This record gives sequence, C-alpha cells and structure tokens, in this order.
Amino acid sequence: MKLSAIAVHIGAALPDGCGSVDVFGITSPESASADKVTFVSDSKYLEQAKKSAACAVIVKKGNGFSEKLCLEVDDPYVSYARAAQLFEDLSPLFGNGIHPAAIVDTTAEIDKSASVGPGTVVGANVKIGANCRIGANCVIERGVKIGESARIDSGVIIRYDSQIGSRAVIQSGAVIGSDGFGNARNRDKEFIRIPCFGIVIIEDDAEIGACTTIDRGNFEPTIIGKGVKLDNLIHIAHNVTIDENTAIAAQTGISGSTKVGKRVIIAGQVGFVGHINIGDDSFIGAKAGVSKDIDPEAKVTGYPARDFMTVRRIEASSAQLPDLLKEVKALRKELELLKEKSV
Amino acid sequence: MKLSAIAVHIGAALPDGCGSVDVFGITSPESASADKVTFVSDSKYLEQAKKSAACAVIVKKGNGFSEKLCLEVDDPYVSYARAAQLFEDLSPLFGNGIHPAAIVDTTAEIDKSASVGPGTVVGANVKIGANCRIGANCVIERGVKIGESARIDSGVIIRYDSQIGSRAVIQSGAVIGSDGFGNARNRDKEFIRIPCFGIVIIEDDAEIGACTTIDRGNFEPTIIGKGVKLDNLIHIAHNVTIDENTAIAAQTGISGSTKVGKRVIIAGQVGFVGHINIGDDSFIGAKAGVSKDIDPEAKVTGYPARDFMTVRRIEASSAQLPDLLKEVKALRKELELLKEKSV
Amino acid sequence: MKLSAIAVHIGAALPDGCGSVDVFGITSPESASADKVTFVSDSKYLEQAKKSAACAVIVKKGNGFSEKLCLEVDDPYVSYARAAQLFEDLSPLFGNGIHPAAIVDTTAEIDKSASVGPGTVVGANVKIGANCRIGANCVIERGVKIGESARIDSGVIIRYDSQIGSRAVIQSGAVIGSDGFGNARNRDKEFIRIPCFGIVIIEDDAEIGACTTIDRGNFEPTIIGKGVKLDNLIHIAHNVTIDENTAIAAQTGISGSTKVGKRVIIAGQVGFVGHINIGDDSFIGAKAGVSKDIDPEAKVTGYPARDFMTVRRIEASSAQLPDLLKEVKALRKELELLKEKSV
Repeated sequence: MKLSAIAVHIGAALPDGCGSVDVFGITSPESASADKVTFVSDSKYLEQAKKSAACAVIVKKGNGFSEKLCLEVDDPYVSYARAAQLFEDLSPLFGNGIHPAAIVDTTAEIDKSASVGPGTVVGANVKIGANCRIGANCVIERGVKIGESARIDSGVIIRYDSQIGSRAVIQSGAVIGSDGFGNARNRDKEFIRIPCFGIVIIEDDAEIGACTTIDRGNFEPTIIGKGVKLDNLIHIAHNVTIDENTAIAAQTGISGSTKVGKRVIIAGQVGFVGHINIGDDSFIGAKAGVSKDIDPEAKVTGYPARDFMTVRRIEASSAQLPDLLKEVKALRKELELLKEKSV
Repeated sequence: MKLSAIAVHIGAALPDGCGSVDVFGITSPESASADKVTFVSDSKYLEQAKKSAACAVIVKKGNGFSEKLCLEVDDPYVSYARAAQLFEDLSPLFGNGIHPAAIVDTTAEIDKSASVGPGTVVGANVKIGANCRIGANCVIERGVKIGESARIDSGVIIRYDSQIGSRAVIQSGAVIGSDGFGNARNRDKEFIRIPCFGIVIIEDDAEIGACTTIDRGNFEPTIIGKGVKLDNLIHIAHNVTIDENTAIAAQTGISGSTKVGKRVIIAGQVGFVGHINIGDDSFIGAKAGVSKDIDPEAKVTGYPARDFMTVRRIEASSAQLPDLLKEVKALRKELELLKEKSV
Repeated sequence: MKLSAIAVHIGAALPDGCGSVDVFGITSPESASADKVTFVSDSKYLEQAKKSAACAVIVKKGNGFSEKLCLEVDDPYVSYARAAQLFEDLSPLFGNGIHPAAIVDTTAEIDKSASVGPGTVVGANVKIGANCRIGANCVIERGVKIGESARIDSGVIIRYDSQIGSRAVIQSGAVIGSDGFGNARNRDKEFIRIPCFGIVIIEDDAEIGACTTIDRGNFEPTIIGKGVKLDNLIHIAHNVTIDENTAIAAQTGISGSTKVGKRVIIAGQVGFVGHINIGDDSFIGAKAGVSKDIDPEAKVTGYPARDFMTVRRIEASSAQLPDLLKEVKALRKELELLKEKSV
C-alpha cells in the first residue's frame, strides 16, 4: 500500500512526493521495520519512534519531527486504529462462497458475496447479508438474521431467531441466544424451568468476545446496542440491555433485566445484580459488585460499589485498622487511669 | 391451546364456559396481547395486569378480580413456569431423527424418537434415550449414556463415559468431562500432569448453562445432582458433588472435592476452595469467597465469607473508617493534654 | 501391567519376586481394589492405605510398612502422578489416522502417526506433528503449527497462525488466538476496533483448560511458556507472556501486556491489570486484584493485593470494626466529661 493512501485515510498531510513509499504494515516503534509505519500515542514513546526503523510515524498535530516522515493527526491512537484496519486481511479463512463441507438448509438465504466455512451448519430460514465472513464449525440456527459485512469466527453458536447487525464481530466460542437462567421454586424446593420466548438482538458494529454468552430474553429481547464492545468470557443474562458505545472487559457478569446506559466503561470481573440501571457515561472499576442504580457519569468501584475516592480512602484506612485497635485499647486504659485519679 | 387446558395443567378453576378461549402464549403484563395469558407474581404488578390486553391472568388464590378471567393458584410464579412449558416449541431444531450430516459411530444406540442435529459426532458405544433432542455440531464421545428427553443444545461437548440423566438440559458451549486440574510439582518445580480416571454424572432434571465446564473426577465421579440448576460460565472442578435441587448463578467456581448440599442457593461469581462442605439449605451471597465449611441454613457472604448481618455491619462501618482514624487521633491529643493537666 | 514396570518407572525398589503382580490401575486408598496400586501423599492417609484392598502402596522413603507391598520414593505424590500416566488410555477417541469425516485442506501436512477426529476442520498450510491426538469438531485454522504428541480435545478452536508446542494439552472449548480487546475511542466516544497482527505461542508441555481463551498479540505474540498449566475459563489478554512452570487456577483473568514470571502460583478468580510484572516464584491468593508489580517470591492476596499477613490482620480487625466505632464514641463521651471536671 502507498503511504499516500494511509495519509488520505486518516486525513493527514504529507510532504510532496513522499506518498509513493510502499508500506507493508503498521506496528509499534519497537517492532517496526523500514517497510512499516508506526505511531506515537503517548509522548513517552516519541524518542523510541524517532529511533525506530519505521518509514513514517503517525503523531499528534504539532508534534512532528524531522527525523522521519510524520503524519500529523488530531488523535494518533484513533488514526493508528484506522490505519491498521487498512492492513487487515479480510480474505475468508476457508475460501470464498459457501464451502462444500458447510451444511446449509435449502431455505437459508445467503448473499453471494458472503463466505461460509466448512462444517458450519446454517438452519432453516436463516438470512446472511452481503460480505459476511463466517468461519468453520459454527452453528447458525433457524430464523437467525445477519446483516452485512459481519464477521462470525469459527466455532460460534448463534441460537434460533437471534438478530445480528451489520459489521458485527462475534468471536470463537461465543454463544448467542442461550436460555436465560429462570427457575420457579415450588413448595418442595424443586426448581421449575421457565422457558424463554424472547430473542437476542446484537446491533450494528457491536463486538462479542470469545466464549462470551448472551442469554435470550423471557418475552422482550436481550439487546447489545450499536457499537458495544464485549471482551471474552462475559455473561449477559436474559433481558439485559446494553446501550450504544459501551465497553465491557473480560469476565464481567450482568444479571437479568439490568439496563446499562450509553458510553459506559466497565472493567473486568465486575458483577451486577439484576433489575438495576447503570447511567450513561459512568465508569465501573475492576471487580466491583454493583447492587444499586449508578448515576450518569459516576465513577464507582469496590463491593459494595461506591464512589472511587471513598473506596480508595477506605482501602488506605483499612491498612491502619490493626494499629487503630491497639491505640483505642491504649486510650481506654489511660482514660480509666485518669478517671480514677480525678475521682 | 384452549384456556381450559392451561387451567387444568396448573390446577386452577375457571368460570363455566370460559375455557374455550384460544390462547397463543404466556407473557408479562406489559407485553401481553389479547391472545395471551399473563400472570401476577407480585402484587405490585396487579394494576398492570388489570390494564393489560391479556385474555386471562394467573393470580394468587383470593386475589382474583373482575376485570379479567382469573386463574387462581397457590403460587402464581410456579404456575406461570408450568404454563409456559406448555407453549415451548419442542420440535427438533434440525428435523426429526438423525440428520444425514450427523456422524454417528455404528456401535452407538440412538432411540428412534431422538433427534441428532447436523455435524454432531456420536462416538462408539454411546447410548441416547427416547425423545432426546441433540443440536448441531455437538460431540458426544465414546461411552456416553444419555437418559430420556434430555436436551443437548448445539455445540455441546460431552467427553467420554459421562452419564447424563433424563430431562437434563445442557446448553451450548458447555463442556462435560474435561480433565481435572491436577498437577504434582517435582523438585525442579515442574508440574507433572495427573490423569483423571473418574467420570462426570449429571442426574435427572439437572440443567447446565452455556460455556459451563465440569471436570471429571480423579477416581470417583464428579456429580451434579438431580434437579440442580447451573447458570453460564461456571467452573466445577474434579470430584465436586452438588446435591439435589441446588442452584448456582453465573461465573461461580467450585474447587476440587468440595461437597455442596441440597437446596443450596449460590449467587454469581462466588469462589469455593477445595475439600469443604456446604450445608443443606444454605445461601451464599454474590462474589463471596468461601474457604471453610458452611453450616446448614447459614447465610453467608463476603470474602472471607461470614454471616450476612456481620458483613453488612462491617461494610457500613468501613465507610466511617477514615473519620474514625481522625477522631482517634483527636482523642489521643486531648487525652495527652488532660494527662498533663492532671499531673 | 506388571508391578515391576511401575517400580522401575518411579525408581522404587521392590522385594524379590514381587514384581510379577498384575496391576490394573492406580487409585485412592478408599476406592482401591486388590488389582490396584494406591499411594500415601500425606501421612494422615497412612492407616487408610494399610487397611485398603490395594495390592501395593507408594509411600515416602522410610515410611514403608509390613502390611502391604510398599514402593518407597522421595515424593509419593509425584510418583503417583508418574505412575498414573502409565495407565492413561492414549488410544485416539475416534480411531487412528485422519477420520473420513474430518475436513482437511490439501496443503495441510499431518504426520501419519497423528489422529484427527470426525468433523474437525484443518485449514491451509497447517502442520501437525507425530503422535498428535486431535478430537472431533475442532477447528485448526490456516497456518497453525502443532509439535509432536500434543493432545487437542474435541471442540477446540485454534485460530490462524497459532503455534502449539510438543506434548501440549488443549482442552475442549478452549479458544486460542482470538482477537485482543483493543479499541480506540474517537471524539464521539465511539470505539474503533484495532486489528491484531500478532499470534499466540503455546510452548512445549503447556496445558490449557476447557473454555479458556487466549488472545493473539497486537504485534508481538502472546506467549504461554513451557510447562505452564492453565485451568478452565481463564482469560489471557493480548501480549501477555507467562513464563515457564507457572500454574493458574480457574476463572482468573490477565489483562493486556502483563508479564507473569516463572513458577508463579495463581489461585482462582484473580484479576490482573495490564502492563505489570509478576515476579518469579510469587504466590497470588484467590480472588486477589493485582494492580501493581509483584516482587519475586512475594505472597499477596486481597484487593488491592497486599502481603498475606497484612491482609489476614486487616480481615481479622475488620470484624471488630462495628464494636470499635461504639468504643470510640464512648471514649469521646467519657473524655468530654473528664474535661468538664478538670476545668
């Protein structure tokens, strides 16, 4: 690819005549070779980038330097992400079209530009849009609809009637549309399984990590909003809705019917009880246990989840707790002595 | 389905002549249409149910009202669960019988009434009972026995010699019979893998969630008891036994050889050390870390797991800890002044 | 198998003429029958072993007894592990060679001694070494290299270009080489997905548990070192490296670019932030949240992770916190009275 193509794609100017350089990838300063572009997402990497072998560097506007061809942009990290997408290998892993070893129901409608890997099962009345890339040994059960340019990696299970948006990415081992964990308990304390009649909707540009499980709703759908990013091994229970552009790190679990707002950032191994609301633009720290509604823009952590500063103060204080106990005993003793004296 | 059939199934009386109404589903008051039944599991939903479009309402005995046809029962939530099962679509997702694209060993015995989806591999000497429904791309390794009317969803892996009870449900991505995590450490601090010779037994009516993993025992089996309900992404280590009618929420992990009693309720993201006993009818709160035996009927939470009230008191107190530190310093100062005076 | 073969394998002496006993397995004292060997890994099991039906017992040197044939060794638990491996059934679960229902790209090179199960997909340019045993319905994407004698269980997904060492074990449902969770956030707070160009390297003798997910690196590889043991449902993020002979229990998560040293022991449900270093021979307790570098040989637990003794002291003290609050209030009151008196 010509350097000029990258510059145009990320909206950076280039000195005349420099755009014809051939570029074969984008990488970190430390692993860069002369045929690659690198980037400076934090000024602490500036020196490394200068000394790197890279043929060009994406830098923040005004931070260009003379040692290298510099592509100046507003946000080098975003521009790196965009440039990296240019180098992504989008060819289907198992060839174009429907692999002869795929098992496709005759009523399924698969766009001619889509690819379906070997061993993948496509059920009745499934619709798969243009340019979708579906890996090997997936199961796409009856009635599933997938938009355009979605990427379904090998080994994904999409259960019946789920709806997957355009450009969505679902990684290997993810399960979409499992039953919710709903059980009624009878007088003998036996559980009666509650069937789920809802579906799962994954909206455009959402991404689901490896071995993440998303349960279908009871009556209403479970919804993963537009542009939501879910990491690996996340549990999303029935009737949860996650609004657009929220990101959730690995191993977090969200219990039934909880509503997560827009642009929320949730760290790893967080747990949420059911039936609560998490406000837009809030931030939830790693390993937090969230049992109440969270205000928009709030930053909470800990279990029970509290304001970040409060939790940090409690943590710091708790280290002094053993000494505090001793000190209070000492105070008691000395006070008793004083009381005796003062009688 | 006729309303009368539902009434009979849940043991509710109906006014004469009302049973002939045709019903096409059961749902929440808010999503009900005129061809559906709804239910009131909590009196706070009563008004909503009255105003809903539903043709009939399941309510607690004595709480019937004139606005709707009411089906009065002892426990509306249990009756809702039972009624919902009537509307479940039990038809196999990939057609009756053994799909031509299933890969079945000639020595496997599969009941004629069972269904096996495309891409599913059935190994040597496997037995699959009547009315089992097995999805697509499962693997059922050699020697596995499955009772009657079990439901094995697409993408489940059941490893060799596991035993699955009747009416058990195993959801997509679950792994039954993986090796236990057993390693001996030699003088050079290298690990020597310990092979597992035990199996996994999943008893009747048990349910295993998506991407839950259950390790086989070392010598004795790992046992998931009758009617046990496991949510998604749970880890059950080797030689664990879970006794009947216990329920465990998502992302909980149970270490090797721990015994969980009957009717225990375990919330999400709990961790248990190995070789402990969890008493019948106990309750373990979310994110608890359990490192000791738990008494029957105990309610514990936190890490280390302690009595609920104790933990709540500690949590509340800890918020006052930073102020407490200041107060104790002030007390010390004032006491010293007093002591000087009193000399 | 002759008892003498076991004795030779674990380096134990046997009285003359005893080696010809036929042995059909190794098991715990309580489940031993007369055709099996047992072992005493802890002296508390000594009496049980004496009374067991076992034909021979592996014991610590000097602890032999007259009731049974004793195989005396330096470390009975290690010797048990080694002896158990002699009894492991190494025959492929779905027969020798490439199963006719496997789907193998013509460019793949599979050693004649390897076995590949039905439904398993092997992509272009894959190399599989001698004596590898690959289960059913796996996906081994293009460019993957697997050493000798590796065991890949049914349902494993190994994504493109991953490298798997000799004698590695990868259990069912594991995903190797999923994309890292990297997203740049633009001015509108939308996430731009960052493609990953790195791979995953799993070195010799490493073991990966069921449904564990290992993300590929951004540029550099994610590395699971020689002899590393990972339990089930673990999340390893992009660019993590885990050095040799480290063991990690279930449901632990390690964030991007964190480096874990050699011979580290990590308990279950631990979380690590990204970009930190965990020293050699350290120990991390269950459910710990590790947000800073850990020194070699340190033992930490809790969240934030601190020295074990400190955490235990804080835990013990915290139980006294509610009483402490009351006591400090009482002290304040009594001090005020004294102050009034002393005026």
